[in-house]
Amino acid sequence: MQKGTKQSAKEPGLPPGTLSFVGHRRAETVRIQVVDYDGETADTFQLEQVDDCSNLAGRRANGWIHVSGLHRVDIVERLGRCFQVPPLILEDILNTGHRPKADIWEKGVFVVAKFFAMEPEEETLQMEQVSFILGGNFLISFQESDRPIFKPVRKRLATPGSRLRRCGVDYLLYCLIDLVVDHYFVVVETVGDRIEDLEEALFHGEGEDLLDPIHRIRRQCLFLRKAVVPLRDAVGILRREEGPLGSREIQPYLKDLQDHVFQVLDTLENQREMGTALLDVYLSSMSNRMNEVMKVLTIIATIFIPITFIAGVYGMNFQYMPELKWPWAYPAVWLIMIVVAVLMLLFFRKKRWI
Amino acid sequence: MQKGTKQSAKEPGLPPGTLSFVGHRRAETVRIQVVDYDGETADTFQLEQVDDCSNLAGRRANGWIHVSGLHRVDIVERLGRCFQVPPLILEDILNTGHRPKADIWEKGVFVVAKFFAMEPEEETLQMEQVSFILGGNFLISFQESDRPIFKPVRKRLATPGSRLRRCGVDYLLYCLIDLVVDHYFVVVETVGDRIEDLEEALFHGEGEDLLDPIHRIRRQCLFLRKAVVPLRDAVGILRREEGPLGSREIQPYLKDLQDHVFQVLDTLENQREMGTALLDVYLSSMSNRMNEVMKVLTIIATIFIPITFIAGVYGMNFQYMPELKWPWAYPAVWLIMIVVAVLMLLFFRKKRWI
Amino acid sequence: MQKGTKQSAKEPGLPPGTLSFVGHRRAETVRIQVVDYDGETADTFQLEQVDDCSNLAGRRANGWIHVSGLHRVDIVERLGRCFQVPPLILEDILNTGHRPKADIWEKGVFVVAKFFAMEPEEETLQMEQVSFILGGNFLISFQESDRPIFKPVRKRLATPGSRLRRCGVDYLLYCLIDLVVDHYFVVVETVGDRIEDLEEALFHGEGEDLLDPIHRIRRQCLFLRKAVVPLRDAVGILRREEGPLGSREIQPYLKDLQDHVFQVLDTLENQREMGTALLDVYLSSMSNRMNEVMKVLTIIATIFIPITFIAGVYGMNFQYMPELKWPWAYPAVWLIMIVVAVLMLLFFRKKRWI
Amino acid sequence: MQKGTKQSAKEPGLPPGTLSFVGHRRAETVRIQVVDYDGETADTFQLEQVDDCSNLAGRRANGWIHVSGLHRVDIVERLGRCFQVPPLILEDILNTGHRPKADIWEKGVFVVAKFFAMEPEEETLQMEQVSFILGGNFLISFQESDRPIFKPVRKRLATPGSRLRRCGVDYLLYCLIDLVVDHYFVVVETVGDRIEDLEEALFHGEGEDLLDPIHRIRRQCLFLRKAVVPLRDAVGILRREEGPLGSREIQPYLKDLQDHVFQVLDTLENQREMGTALLDVYLSSMSNRMNEVMKVLTIIATIFIPITFIAGVYGMNFQYMPELKWPWAYPAVWLIMIVVAVLMLLFFRKKRWI
Amino acid sequence: MQKGTKQSAKEPGLPPGTLSFVGHRRAETVRIQVVDYDGETADTFQLEQVDDCSNLAGRRANGWIHVSGLHRVDIVERLGRCFQVPPLILEDILNTGHRPKADIWEKGVFVVAKFFAMEPEEETLQMEQVSFILGGNFLISFQESDRPIFKPVRKRLATPGSRLRRCGVDYLLYCLIDLVVDHYFVVVETVGDRIEDLEEALFHGEGEDLLDPIHRIRRQCLFLRKAVVPLRDAVGILRREEGPLGSREIQPYLKDLQDHVFQVLDTLENQREMGTALLDVYLSSMSNRMNEVMKVLTIIATIFIPITFIAGVYGMNFQYMPELKWPWAYPAVWLIMIVVAVLMLLFFRKKRWI
Repeated sequence: MQKGTKQSAKEPGLPPGTLSFVGHRRAETVRIQVVDYDGETADTFQLEQVDDCSNLAGRRANGWIHVSGLHRVDIVERLGRCFQVPPLILEDILNTGHRPKADIWEKGVFVVAKFFAMEPEEETLQMEQVSFILGGNFLISFQESDRPIFKPVRKRLATPGSRLRRCGVDYLLYCLIDLVVDHYFVVVETVGDRIEDLEEALFHGEGEDLLDPIHRIRRQCLFLRKAVVPLRDAVGILRREEGPLGSREIQPYLKDLQDHVFQVLDTLENQREMGTALLDVYLSSMSNRMNEVMKVLTIIATIFIPITFIAGVYGMNFQYMPELKWPWAYPAVWLIMIVVAVLMLLFFRKKRWI
Repeated sequence: MQKGTKQSAKEPGLPPGTLSFVGHRRAETVRIQVVDYDGETADTFQLEQVDDCSNLAGRRANGWIHVSGLHRVDIVERLGRCFQVPPLILEDILNTGHRPKADIWEKGVFVVAKFFAMEPEEETLQMEQVSFILGGNFLISFQESDRPIFKPVRKRLATPGSRLRRCGVDYLLYCLIDLVVDHYFVVVETVGDRIEDLEEALFHGEGEDLLDPIHRIRRQCLFLRKAVVPLRDAVGILRREEGPLGSREIQPYLKDLQDHVFQVLDTLENQREMGTALLDVYLSSMSNRMNEVMKVLTIIATIFIPITFIAGVYGMNFQYMPELKWPWAYPAVWLIMIVVAVLMLLFFRKKRWI
Repeated sequence: MQKGTKQSAKEPGLPPGTLSFVGHRRAETVRIQVVDYDGETADTFQLEQVDDCSNLAGRRANGWIHVSGLHRVDIVERLGRCFQVPPLILEDILNTGHRPKADIWEKGVFVVAKFFAMEPEEETLQMEQVSFILGGNFLISFQESDRPIFKPVRKRLATPGSRLRRCGVDYLLYCLIDLVVDHYFVVVETVGDRIEDLEEALFHGEGEDLLDPIHRIRRQCLFLRKAVVPLRDAVGILRREEGPLGSREIQPYLKDLQDHVFQVLDTLENQREMGTALLDVYLSSMSNRMNEVMKVLTIIATIFIPITFIAGVYGMNFQYMPELKWPWAYPAVWLIMIVVAVLMLLFFRKKRWI
Repeated sequence: MQKGTKQSAKEPGLPPGTLSFVGHRRAETVRIQVVDYDGETADTFQLEQVDDCSNLAGRRANGWIHVSGLHRVDIVERLGRCFQVPPLILEDILNTGHRPKADIWEKGVFVVAKFFAMEPEEETLQMEQVSFILGGNFLISFQESDRPIFKPVRKRLATPGSRLRRCGVDYLLYCLIDLVVDHYFVVVETVGDRIEDLEEALFHGEGEDLLDPIHRIRRQCLFLRKAVVPLRDAVGILRREEGPLGSREIQPYLKDLQDHVFQVLDTLENQREMGTALLDVYLSSMSNRMNEVMKVLTIIATIFIPITFIAGVYGMNFQYMPELKWPWAYPAVWLIMIVVAVLMLLFFRKKRWI
Repeated sequence: MQKGTKQSAKEPGLPPGTLSFVGHRRAETVRIQVVDYDGETADTFQLEQVDDCSNLAGRRANGWIHVSGLHRVDIVERLGRCFQVPPLILEDILNTGHRPKADIWEKGVFVVAKFFAMEPEEETLQMEQVSFILGGNFLISFQESDRPIFKPVRKRLATPGSRLRRCGVDYLLYCLIDLVVDHYFVVVETVGDRIEDLEEALFHGEGEDLLDPIHRIRRQCLFLRKAVVPLRDAVGILRREEGPLGSREIQPYLKDLQDHVFQVLDTLENQREMGTALLDVYLSSMSNRMNEVMKVLTIIATIFIPITFIAGVYGMNFQYMPELKWPWAYPAVWLIMIVVAVLMLLFFRKKRWI
């Protein structure tokens, strides 16, 4: 269904912390973009050699290292070693089917989330996993493809005097997750529009088959929900725990983020129920049509079957059928047949079938 | 479906606190009405220039500033600056698709709710978002349209010696939310009446198609529930938290309000289940009708098909058909046909189809 | 459906504590019955003038004031003033659509519950709201109609040496609520009997239409549940809180009451699921019947349509039809037709349709 | 359905603690069996006169008094007085429709549970209520019928040196409840076997009507669940509370018991969903059969109706029908009719109906 | 359905701790494999005589004793005595239908889990119960069959310098449970693939009957869920409790394990809903096909029934039928019949049936 939902599970029995890429390769090459910023300056450059990452760790300015493409295990491993990230976390980053979550570990915060995009013309949901490692003054973000999903934040970071510049990397983390959640709104709204289109088509449509699109909507709601429900818990952990995000300054933003996630969930829940309701309506309208088909058949058949019988009777070849010789018999038979047909029609009218 | 349920989501990636109107313009112009009141006097006037709001902040009497129309971002921003409202809250006010909620912030309380009205003759649910900012001695309320929804409270405020006059702005906030919830009762009752009408029509009705109205009822219940469930939590926050509403005096009123919200929810939950039950009944009655149609067809067909066959047999043109020459053959065939028909009718009677 | 379930909602925007009767007038006149009792004596009299209530407040013996009929707002208001009942509580008493609840207020306890009765022959559920105000040594009870629902308690109170006499008004309150809950058992059992009757009729019945009674049962379960679920919480509040009912003596009785409410709820929950299951069975049996109807039609039609065709062929008037002149053609055609019919019957037997 | 599920509710308004038997008489006579045991000896005798119970109370050895048959209120009352059991508990013992529960009261523990047995050949669920009163050194158990349900425990008690002998009456209580729960496993397994039989019959069966057995299974699951869910809570109370069962020694056994109850519930929950799934399969297979019936009818009808029409055309008696005189017309008509029939068959083959 | 899901329940009334094998014998012989390991060496040998187990208990190195095959009660009993395992735990090990759980007992930890394997070609789910007893420096594991399910861990243990070697038996326990959970991912993914195949077949398939495979998928989801939900709680207990696994070192691994179990559950929950959705689609497509069948029948019948009647009319043998003698009557009748047929076709086109 959606690209990238099917992945091969890890081979059972590998030692924990064994790094292996689980998923589909989505990017041509792995690219590492670095932004070094503080209140005054913001330096953007591309890291050509992953070994240079040792230069990145341990500097004074805030650093955002963004990795797009996950299929090179060695690069992720090297980065992890530079920034002292535990192997269990690196393993989760490389498993693109991981559940959204937030972990507080002694040196930082680890967040996994799902990024969704839905091209209106394409009808399919694009999903990729994004993960974030927040340390003292650095944030490492990972995404599967090289789609520029964080471009708006990059732009704001390039703007001198923006709040992003002035605040620390925790605010940057918030902005990136918020961007992910903003896309949920877009996707959820597209789903909502489709539900309304389907309703329209069901009640006033031209009989095309809507079973497949209704099923697709239901599946997409299930799929989105599976990504958003754990994110709700993850944001809750970020708000509650006494980690690097516990500072008072960032809390109102996280509360706002949590409100947004709740709103997405409320809408998804409603859409799920709407999907079920649509199927009910679809099934009912199928029954309706069947009823209509049957009524047409029944009306035609019950009108003509009796009068065809009458015609059959006078088609018999008995020698002694007195009626056959009566001069007014033929018009009389027509009369009888018309009366029978009219009585049937009246019966159907009484039953409100016509 | 309902006017105003469809809105375009905010563009992803804007910085938090960026003010932009999300929704449909519902009012011609933005109007700001101010009521200054204390125990003795109540001054009502219209604020022509939003810049005059600086005069409003910091006075001694209680002030209620009501803004109808949200499409002018600059006005909301200016007001927010006058009363030192955080930008994240202003952003929520301007997002007309926001989830009902209550926030306690250091200088006040912020409440978002949904106002519903249902014109009995119109069948559609009118919704607009209302939001309230409660400060030390002022209350700012926002609504999307210029419909006079708070007129009853305005009247009571104009009455000298009323409790509203004597109490502070927290009591005014309670009264406004209570008014919103009172309208829920009206809407929920209208929905209940329609459910009863639909039941009546389903069991004793004249066969009109009820699929669309049943679906509409179910959708309205979902829609209302999405607005009322978060309001329940919001009222819970108002009651629990140690904010400006924690005073002992206002608590019984908030408890009463909470009771009302619970009652609306109970009724909505029941109505939702009734909606599902109605659909079940509709589907069953469709099956019933199909059964009836099929029975009519079957009875007519199974009576006439065999006797038409008999007539067909004696319509054959074989030279050597002895029966054709027997003088009593024709009445005998009639007798046989009548016996067959009567046997069929007895069979159907035994099966209780007729 | 049930008498008295439909009520007009309160007009939106009235000040809190505004007394107005919401519901249907159920009693001719408002009657106030008073029982003054202590261990030795029990005085029962009718209060003709509500103004005499000032004599009732502040005496030493236990007093039970029972008001039947709620349509006279002035009487309730006067009583409330005598016993210093807060207006918000009086408002709830007069709103006959109120949700069952228990409130502990500084001077007493306020309980709302729903009384149900179901006349076996009537099939409809009779509901009325009862409410109780418990003060230091008085209990005021309200009911909508003048049906003598509390007669058994009244009798026990008249019996010298009964436990009711010896204990305080809190025990009296318990006895009255217990009586209300005892009636739930009767109603729930009647509903259960009807479910069994419906099952019987569905599996062994004579084809009457059971859709309406099944739907009615489901609706009654929903309706009862809406009254019992909040009562469960209300009894929980009575047991938990440190109010006038917190004394050790009354607690075992309240625990017993709570057990009963839980049992009613368990049964209701089961009955609700049984109602759904019955509808499933109904729909399945509809399908079954349809199948049977279709089989009869199909069997008759598929046997006679081919042989009618054969008869039709030899009814053609072509000049050159050699068969028509063969002397054994007519019996041969009969043979063919019988063979075709028998083959069809064998086919149906193989399919287990006959 | 199950014997003994229907009971008449208690008359409303009786004083709490009024003893009256609610249920069906299941035993001929009330029998009281006593086992006096300690580490060394175990004395079993029948108590002929209930008045002798005063001898039982207050002795040193452990005593198990088992009462089978509940219809003699006086006997239960007398026993209760001997062992100082509160009347509210005696009332619950006599109410055979009571919800399973555990009560800790100052002098002991009171447990109500439901015993189930299911005769494989009978298809019906036998239920009876058992209740237990645990005091310092005595256990009184009650059952409705005289079926020897506790025989295995009685045997173990008769075995010298068994753990039952060495431990106190709390261990005896555990053993009896454990026996009740062991029977749940048997019943639940029988239900599971029937579900598998039904599945088998649905997919490979011979078309017998399975609606009734599927419905019965669903009802039995509901019925069992209503008995097991409260028992789970009851065992939880026994484990948590600081009553006579709070000793460390009995706790592992109670934990084991709780595990068993959870397992029964898990299985029941699964079976309930399986029951619903079976009904879905049943309904689907009904639809399948209907489809097959309709296809047969449609194939036969659509093949023969057009060719019968052709035969009808040449059965017309117009004087000027040139075809009638053509010598090769008759075989040509046969050819046309065969072509039409073959085309129809190809059409059905393309549609995969045959 | 699945091998080994059906088991005979324990006989009711046995004393607790009575050891008896409940299940199906899955292994030819009971084999006991021992691995003695510390940082430097790892000794693997087979224990021929269970009595030698006394040598195993009380040594210094870490020991992993793995028992495959459970049908020899005496062996399990002997092992239990050697390592001082309480009989209630041994009873649970021998009951192969036990619910997954974790118990902390004073000398160790006891864990029950279900191992699943699903051969892609076989379509059936293989389940066996595994249980683990963790003591100070030993781990005893039990499995039902002799399938080498723990082979990967055995290999890692044989590798010098691996983390498994260096850490204690608690890490070994984690690795074994993790291996079990890894297999869940494989099974759940296989189920997911089948769901996608079924969807494909439903929407684009060739009409084969999918009722049985859909039902099987739903049942497998229920079955898996019943095993995974209690395991979630069991892992929670391992993490929470202050037992041998409470050390800081193992905690991140257990957290990782818990994440995995949650992810399996999320996926299962989604698959369960997908299974229901598939059934809905199946039922809808059945309705669709029925509709199509009915339409074909109706179109053919309603076109030919009226014109067959016309032919029948002119097949009548009345002497005075003027039309019969008109020379242009025959072509005129053909014209009428064609017009009627075309009108019918236009009517069906308007109804969008063709």
